[in-house]
Amino acid sequence: MPTGSAPTPFTKVHRLPDRAAYDRGAVHAVLDAAPIAHVGLVRDARPVVIPLLFGRLDDALYLHGSVAGGVLRDGGAGVELCVTTTVVDGLVFARSAFHHSMNYRSAVVIGRARAVDGDEKLAGLRAIAEHLTPGRWDESRPPNPVELAKTAVLRLGLDEASTKCRAAGPVDDDEDLELAVWAGVVPVVVGYGAPIDAENLAPGIDLSPAVTALVTDG
Amino acid sequence: MPTGSAPTPFTKVHRLPDRAAYDRGAVHAVLDAAPIAHVGLVRDARPVVIPLLFGRLDDALYLHGSVAGGVLRDGGAGVELCVTTTVVDGLVFARSAFHHSMNYRSAVVIGRARAVDGDEKLAGLRAIAEHLTPGRWDESRPPNPVELAKTAVLRLGLDEASTKCRAAGPVDDDEDLELAVWAGVVPVVVGYGAPIDAENLAPGIDLSPAVTALVTDG
Repeated sequence: MPTGSAPTPFTKVHRLPDRAAYDRGAVHAVLDAAPIAHVGLVRDARPVVIPLLFGRLDDALYLHGSVAGGVLRDGGAGVELCVTTTVVDGLVFARSAFHHSMNYRSAVVIGRARAVDGDEKLAGLRAIAEHLTPGRWDESRPPNPVELAKTAVLRLGLDEASTKCRAAGPVDDDEDLELAVWAGVVPVVVGYGAPIDAENLAPGIDLSPAVTALVTDG
Repeated sequence: MPTGSAPTPFTKVHRLPDRAAYDRGAVHAVLDAAPIAHVGLVRDARPVVIPLLFGRLDDALYLHGSVAGGVLRDGGAGVELCVTTTVVDGLVFARSAFHHSMNYRSAVVIGRARAVDGDEKLAGLRAIAEHLTPGRWDESRPPNPVELAKTAVLRLGLDEASTKCRAAGPVDDDEDLELAVWAGVVPVVVGYGAPIDAENLAPGIDLSPAVTALVTDG
């Protein structure tokens, strides 16, 4: 098996292969920038795709959810997963309808996950909690045994992974360049709004450092 | 078959069913708010999930891509699709790690698509072009016969569809309420940055009305 440095027959990008990369750094960067993952699997010969939170630790991603959830149950039983994350960076406007496009970064990870326990389960949960908000784990009450028993955590190695990115202006046909149509890129910007206190927040509790950093630095 | 008003055994949400809805209005609203779709299918008994642009027209969604693309080819051949779209609305911070969550709206559409041609193909392409930018179709050069021949357009009816949404503050255990930990929601805000002219944009061509409206109104 390759270790994230070369495409397999299954992860190889066939359409527009110049947009593809397979090295670990590229895969890590896209995963780290994506807020959620869309996790696909086959159930009763039918495709299932659901959104899940996730985290990355070294060369693996971690998924979590209720032990009662179908995707966590099937994934823990060794059913193959396809985990896709996509960051939309911009809308690309061309002179022709045909050449409209999108700037994006996507990563696809394929493989069989395994349920983890003990220290690795805690490490996976920390990676998920800190995926978007570094530092949050140590601010929160850690999970107790009952909560841990209710939660399944899966580890999926990044051995079979690819990325595909587009980051460019519109590519119009030469004969369209004289058309009086605006062409260019409109960036898509994702940010965070002003934090909203929980209704039952006790007086005198300020925003925590991790949440402050999130809102300040994005 | 239900027509978007009741769950099927396959679309029925089992986990946290109070977050689910199946009526057409709810499905339309989530689809219309989502920038892209994650499209899943089964190929060689393995799950495949890729991000695609899409559009909605009445009770169907439309996907497009190169006729050379695997997902468009398989989808057009009647392979079952699971199309999932997710809008992330906020990060939910609880006192306990366990009760951290996310506010989101997701829609799942399952079914067999069919390739469309002629007027419906054009209508589908228009729906995709205008999904995020109403009015853009009429500003652009329409596709010519060669471009149309290179492009596959699939129609997937919304007969089997569900939504799942969370829109609330953190739900902590009573015994955690006294912890001195900030809890609340940080909204996730998606907006558009200042448009960037194409490098080869001719002098004197202003931003078009559709792009102006996009950037102004989001």
